[in-house]
Amino acid sequence: MTTGPHAESTTAASDPGALSRRRLLGVAGAGALAGAAGLGGFGVAQAQQEDNSPDAGLGYAFHGEHQAGIVTPAQDRLHFASFDVTTDSRDALVALLRAWTEAAAAMTAGKAVGSATATSYDSPPGDTGEALGLPPAGLTLTFGFGPTLFEKDGVDRFGLRDRRPAGLRRLPHFPGDDLDPARSDGDLCVQACANDPQVAVHAIRNLARIGFGTVAVRWAQLGFGRTSSTSRSQQTPRNLLGFKDGTANLKAEETADLETFVWVGHDDDPAARWLAGGSYLVARRINMHIETWDRTSLREQEALVGRDRAHGAPLSGGTEHTEPDLDLQGSAGPLVPLNSHVRLAHPTQNDGTRMLRRGYNFTDGSDSLGRLDAGLFFVAFVRDPDRHYVPMQNQLSAKDGLMEYLQHTGSGLWAVPPGVRPGEYVGQALFA
Amino acid sequence: MTTGPHAESTTAASDPGALSRRRLLGVAGAGALAGAAGLGGFGVAQAQQEDNSPDAGLGYAFHGEHQAGIVTPAQDRLHFASFDVTTDSRDALVALLRAWTEAAAAMTAGKAVGSATATSYDSPPGDTGEALGLPPAGLTLTFGFGPTLFEKDGVDRFGLRDRRPAGLRRLPHFPGDDLDPARSDGDLCVQACANDPQVAVHAIRNLARIGFGTVAVRWAQLGFGRTSSTSRSQQTPRNLLGFKDGTANLKAEETADLETFVWVGHDDDPAARWLAGGSYLVARRINMHIETWDRTSLREQEALVGRDRAHGAPLSGGTEHTEPDLDLQGSAGPLVPLNSHVRLAHPTQNDGTRMLRRGYNFTDGSDSLGRLDAGLFFVAFVRDPDRHYVPMQNQLSAKDGLMEYLQHTGSGLWAVPPGVRPGEYVGQALFA
Repeated sequence: MTTGPHAESTTAASDPGALSRRRLLGVAGAGALAGAAGLGGFGVAQAQQEDNSPDAGLGYAFHGEHQAGIVTPAQDRLHFASFDVTTDSRDALVALLRAWTEAAAAMTAGKAVGSATATSYDSPPGDTGEALGLPPAGLTLTFGFGPTLFEKDGVDRFGLRDRRPAGLRRLPHFPGDDLDPARSDGDLCVQACANDPQVAVHAIRNLARIGFGTVAVRWAQLGFGRTSSTSRSQQTPRNLLGFKDGTANLKAEETADLETFVWVGHDDDPAARWLAGGSYLVARRINMHIETWDRTSLREQEALVGRDRAHGAPLSGGTEHTEPDLDLQGSAGPLVPLNSHVRLAHPTQNDGTRMLRRGYNFTDGSDSLGRLDAGLFFVAFVRDPDRHYVPMQNQLSAKDGLMEYLQHTGSGLWAVPPGVRPGEYVGQALFA
Repeated sequence: MTTGPHAESTTAASDPGALSRRRLLGVAGAGALAGAAGLGGFGVAQAQQEDNSPDAGLGYAFHGEHQAGIVTPAQDRLHFASFDVTTDSRDALVALLRAWTEAAAAMTAGKAVGSATATSYDSPPGDTGEALGLPPAGLTLTFGFGPTLFEKDGVDRFGLRDRRPAGLRRLPHFPGDDLDPARSDGDLCVQACANDPQVAVHAIRNLARIGFGTVAVRWAQLGFGRTSSTSRSQQTPRNLLGFKDGTANLKAEETADLETFVWVGHDDDPAARWLAGGSYLVARRINMHIETWDRTSLREQEALVGRDRAHGAPLSGGTEHTEPDLDLQGSAGPLVPLNSHVRLAHPTQNDGTRMLRRGYNFTDGSDSLGRLDAGLFFVAFVRDPDRHYVPMQNQLSAKDGLMEYLQHTGSGLWAVPPGVRPGEYVGQALFA
């Protein structure tokens, strides 16, 4: 099996799982030296140290009660991928989830994909290689199951129909929606977040490669500059409207509210207990009419948002984290206008609902008129989409003054199974 | 002129140029407090400090002998934009270059765009805002002039025809080219590089906005994970083939070779002396057939590249920075194969030419078959494209074994004027 100096099997018997991407370089180098004599000096190479990133130590555990990438402090970059399952075989689907789980555990720890013994010099490399030498960079991989995995065109594809959670349906049409089917839905989704886009892209690419023949990428979205902080340790970033976004976001530290609004409870859906400890991922690709917005007065912009631009303070006064006073009147009505985003998204206007959002800015170039194809890739994790997302979005789509500058062009809903225990695979309880 | 609490004119008279993006927040906050009484408390906000980035101090000078973004240590992110000029007015073009110069000097210093006195609360903000509070993040902006600026369809649009440098022509067709006109050419180009994509995107967006009515974005490209180091202080990164890329790249420290291969000399082209101290920017969008490559054996991959994957050492032996021995024979021919990329790009095979490359990886989602639309956005700066780029690319396109996995889908050539002196605008000597 070991046929050349670069075979990774040199030390595989000892502890393949402990091969970090960086140590692997050293190991391969040693292998190169050991194997060189037999190949006439072909590919002789020295092991060398590499450490070219400041966040080399940042890695998040893959295993846990909940999947990572939900309350994890939002990383700077996103590569989100939606997959269609192309097989009819339940066994093949389960095998894929096993393989994805193994690969995800490796990559989030900064290790190369692939069993160290599986690679020979005459085979394709187990890992595509572009992240070799890079640290974990805070990589998280979060997996979700779409409604069509349970039933599609009336067909119970994988014997899962009876286990579909009641809340897992295609999102309804909202006022103003202009959805592109090629940017919507999907049987499976993977959210890759990292502080280095090369690490996030590497992860999705290797998962897609592992899934060749079982799944195909339906659509994908790159994002940057998290638009919602998910931890009190983070500053509030700005979206492409130029405003701070996510000031009132549900944060990792608010554990009681997380139980109420994010994590699916044990008794939420007796037919889908496998989802307990999980959540639902709502994705919306929201284009912004950037050029029009940029020609709007600061006064109008702030009135539509309901906050001042410089600091993110509500127009009722105070500083960024001051609670908006929705009743406070100015000379021409409420200081926080009736059609402002802050008012319409406020818990008091939404049956007390709070939301954990985890969106990213996106820029996908320009259209044929030279306008930016850019906006917000909205991601939220909710316990019950019918209570915690749909009503609010209906209200925003119908009344939010910002909608004049927004266009929802993509949409998806996935059930996000709970965290994975060592030795199990993601979503295992669904197939048990 | 000051009509609201957020007008930026509060301290403008003193030194508007010194308003950093961060100080601006403080200033606006003070303005908010001062103006609040007159507006019934509307928009009261406290000034606050923000510092949420580790590279807050990293800024490169905009003014200098050469434009920044060429020998500047390659930053991690790219937003490249090609513009078409939509006016017939030479004066409007010059006014745009003046405005772009002023904005570029501000943004690369981490300051907001727009004169501090030009913004009122009833006007659109001078700056689109999404980079407020962010540091310069190593932003550089590099401007270029395309062949069509000098003559298009036989028309001398701006009285520049006689000043076109001889080397500034549309690049020739290379074997295997499959160029998309919507991703090629353009009257002007701007290369924005930064360590934060939000800063790079903000820069292009604001330049496009300033140019509204004078220019329109023709195409744009986002990139990440620089694929060539341009300084000895940088590690060699990996491209999406998984290999180190740019080991032999011309580096900022090699000043003699920069004079020979990058900077246009005073006597290179007597009709275009305005370009002395400048360079030519070659851009090529090179798609990679990722899925095919990923199913190729490691042996084949390394033979095509001519280096080992783990360390980037030439197949003739040694370590990454060992000079390839193109004559060293193995049992089946040269150890660095005749059709390998390293051999065909080597100076000894190209009349001694060395090149300063500054490309970026790109991923633009997936195509309708689920294949990654990804590859290398190749950028190089050369003194003379006819000597330092075209012959090498002809050879690579015809003979490089890697071409089986590559497809050139976009192309452009621009003349990059020399650096800007304080008080001047970019390319001023061309219009003198």
